[in-house]
Amino acid sequence: MRLAELSERSGVSTATIKYYLREGLLAPGRQINTTTAEYDEEHLRRLRLVRAMIQVGGVPVATVREVLDHVDDDSLPRTIRLGAAMWALPQVPEPDEEDEFVRAAHHEVSALLEQLGWENAKRLSTISPAYRSLVVSVAAFRRLGYGWGAELMAPYAELMHRTAVLDLDNMETHPSEEERIEFAILGAIINEPILQSLHRLAQEEETARRYGFDE
Amino acid sequence: MRLAELSERSGVSTATIKYYLREGLLAPGRQINTTTAEYDEEHLRRLRLVRAMIQVGGVPVATVREVLDHVDDDSLPRTIRLGAAMWALPQVPEPDEEDEFVRAAHHEVSALLEQLGWENAKRLSTISPAYRSLVVSVAAFRRLGYGWGAELMAPYAELMHRTAVLDLDNMETHPSEEERIEFAILGAIINEPILQSLHRLAQEEETARRYGFDE
Repeated sequence: MRLAELSERSGVSTATIKYYLREGLLAPGRQINTTTAEYDEEHLRRLRLVRAMIQVGGVPVATVREVLDHVDDDSLPRTIRLGAAMWALPQVPEPDEEDEFVRAAHHEVSALLEQLGWENAKRLSTISPAYRSLVVSVAAFRRLGYGWGAELMAPYAELMHRTAVLDLDNMETHPSEEERIEFAILGAIINEPILQSLHRLAQEEETARRYGFDE
Repeated sequence: MRLAELSERSGVSTATIKYYLREGLLAPGRQINTTTAEYDEEHLRRLRLVRAMIQVGGVPVATVREVLDHVDDDSLPRTIRLGAAMWALPQVPEPDEEDEFVRAAHHEVSALLEQLGWENAKRLSTISPAYRSLVVSVAAFRRLGYGWGAELMAPYAELMHRTAVLDLDNMETHPSEEERIEFAILGAIINEPILQSLHRLAQEEETARRYGFDE
């Protein structure tokens, strides 16, 4: 398809598509003469993904490029390519290991992983942004006097694991490796508002079931 | 306790406590003479909550006051007081009901609630910010060519419902109504980073379980 059709089918203006092409977020089309290039379904899919990251996920252009560079590098192990989206997200600053609350949080999160038998997460803990952001959040709560210990977190972690199993099951319904990786990016970066809304809606439902409206 | 002790026990500076008192986020202490007031455990608890909302949750001062006004208004039904935190969160703008993607999203979310048997959420749907933000997110995805239909959402919603059951079970371990409501605010506004981190950690764990590190 030509640029105009790519624009129409994606709902993204031709000016924006040209900008993405210049920024390297979209591979060049197949040049059919000096002024015209031809695009295919893969361009359309990639364009939708870029659009979703920028527009729905609020991801900066430089980060989008960084994510896509990892995704497209098939010399990387699959786990790393699939994780690329998360690894390129805004990083939580390194917590201060001298801080007593950070140390306590590390302790609780380690105990949690131990209790759950999450061997891989343990192995990744020194480099994982998810691990680091959990430690930072737990430390922030502890500093305010709210304990989020391993015991309290474990049942939540089990439910989040079941959520992750669903994420990956859904991902595996996609036939090609490319589509799977794109789906993983969506899962990591932009499906979160859906989950968050579902959680809040469920809180409303459960609260009303327990206490009604008329007390 | 005096102001100095309240400051020490909460880790909040006396200047900040005075600011919260002036802004009405904290009830005045019991005046024991013209220059000295006495504070109790309830002040400490409320101060921690205010601090958590502002510092960890990034909630603006005016919103904190609005939330606390609802929470402290015991003429309101319990479900509404417990929901106050969510209702005072930054509101997603009203979606454009003429938009075809918004209409499709409404249709899917209604079908979802029907399928789940969430009668209360259905009843609250015209006023619930959680419902509205779900519709807005689903519409945004659909516009980009990603379908989040009722079938795909239902298993996630079931897991989020189990998460909400945990939230409320934990809340009910607190003895007083005041503490329960404060716990509900924490659950609605600021526990989300913990859940999000647990979800991402679980995605890493599950990805590594399925695909290892060395392919």
